[in-house]
Amino acid sequence: MEQSNEVLVRSTLARIRRLRLRTVRQRTGLHFIEGFRPFLQVTDAHLPIETVIYSEILAQNPIVQKKVRLTKRDGVRVLRMSPEQFRSISLTPRASGIGTILPQHWTPLDQIDPHKGLCWVVVRALRSPGNLGTIIRTAGAVGAGGLILLEDSIDLFDPSIVRASMGGIFRLQVVRTTIQAFALWSGQHACDVLGTSPTADSLYTEVPMAPPLMVLFGEERKGLTPEEFAVCTHRARIPIVGSADSLNVGVAAGVILYEMLRRRPATTSRSIPNG
Amino acid sequence: MEQSNEVLVRSTLARIRRLRLRTVRQRTGLHFIEGFRPFLQVTDAHLPIETVIYSEILAQNPIVQKKVRLTKRDGVRVLRMSPEQFRSISLTPRASGIGTILPQHWTPLDQIDPHKGLCWVVVRALRSPGNLGTIIRTAGAVGAGGLILLEDSIDLFDPSIVRASMGGIFRLQVVRTTIQAFALWSGQHACDVLGTSPTADSLYTEVPMAPPLMVLFGEERKGLTPEEFAVCTHRARIPIVGSADSLNVGVAAGVILYEMLRRRPATTSRSIPNG
Repeated sequence: MEQSNEVLVRSTLARIRRLRLRTVRQRTGLHFIEGFRPFLQVTDAHLPIETVIYSEILAQNPIVQKKVRLTKRDGVRVLRMSPEQFRSISLTPRASGIGTILPQHWTPLDQIDPHKGLCWVVVRALRSPGNLGTIIRTAGAVGAGGLILLEDSIDLFDPSIVRASMGGIFRLQVVRTTIQAFALWSGQHACDVLGTSPTADSLYTEVPMAPPLMVLFGEERKGLTPEEFAVCTHRARIPIVGSADSLNVGVAAGVILYEMLRRRPATTSRSIPNG
Repeated sequence: MEQSNEVLVRSTLARIRRLRLRTVRQRTGLHFIEGFRPFLQVTDAHLPIETVIYSEILAQNPIVQKKVRLTKRDGVRVLRMSPEQFRSISLTPRASGIGTILPQHWTPLDQIDPHKGLCWVVVRALRSPGNLGTIIRTAGAVGAGGLILLEDSIDLFDPSIVRASMGGIFRLQVVRTTIQAFALWSGQHACDVLGTSPTADSLYTEVPMAPPLMVLFGEERKGLTPEEFAVCTHRARIPIVGSADSLNVGVAAGVILYEMLRRRPATTSRSIPNG
């Protein structure tokens, strides 16, 4: 290996370590994903890539090797390194030998199409990265247009959220805005905003679900805040039988999103491929 | 504190520590839950209790104290101890001061009513305790009759499953049996057995869902095994749009179980209380 490449490898590995911090991800607008599957999901989604790091000895799969060659031919920087160097930044029990640094794919609110996809998923705060990741995974599975984050509390490119989304995050447009800007924008575009709450009068099976539709999920324990409630044009509850308290928020989101998909005109739903 | 009580406290704390092991839970048929909420869920479900351990200094809430007095009046053994003693077995950051040793509430297969509740949930193997806990929570929320575990792989009273079920486990009858015995029994009772699989021909919205109904969920990565497939009378898939791989199994279970609840005759679903 040449000297100059060795310097670049070392500085890149140092950058990857720093990208574990939210503050660094925020400042640079980048994030790092490890493994072949996420790499494939990113290339399938045609998202821009900053750097691929690669240890051919670890990534023995010929499919991986071919895909890396193709990526390099497309003009992406591929940085080869030794297994030891790769392992020095790997957080998985068995280092895959492939990792990707890429820009966070934010879209400004005024550039998205509220009619795109089945609906848009809106969240402001969730306690569990796993729950948010699961919601994103389901949003990808139903063909949602994207995800709108209100305010700053969610660290969307936290690796545990990205991982739990199982690639769903790369299939969605993602937007961050304030609750005020969202209220204004959704009003201007005549969007319905559906909020789920155990105290709502209507059942989720009874509320209208016509596009352009925004669906807002509240925090795990507290549900929708009064401010979030105020931006909703409709509120619905998922029925709970007997003495059970509540549903997991990821499950609640799945129930609502699949009810939307079920109601789509037959011409559209017939085009759904075998999943 | 008398000497004899002190001896009992020490031996009980030692028993609770041993109950962390699956082998000990299996041999004794007991399990231990920590905290006031699970204790309340157990008493609400009228499940038998072996021993309540209690530190009045830690459990300052008067509602907790009153509930413990009532439980003791009902003939349950309540073992008082110091905060230090309680903390010695507590696995939570803030010891609640109340814990319960109780029998695992298994029911034999031949004693359950396949018509009970909305349906019965059947699982054989799941990787994630969190996913199984979530499925149990949802099963409780839709009013399922109970949970049938096939074979021995799932450790149902693992504290992480019990915790993730959010009390759902105490609202369900639970059964363990072999896949052969289940196949025989479900045939004898003319049960429909619905399996979810991405390769099924029918959509979940199109398959019949009439009681007595068993719904079988496969393992996270591999889905239904050929043996599990063989016991199903119906198979259905949940549609996936675009390039997404699959759904989280807890979400898939939620979508299926709420589709069943949605299809119940209106007279029944009107009786669903505000959740």
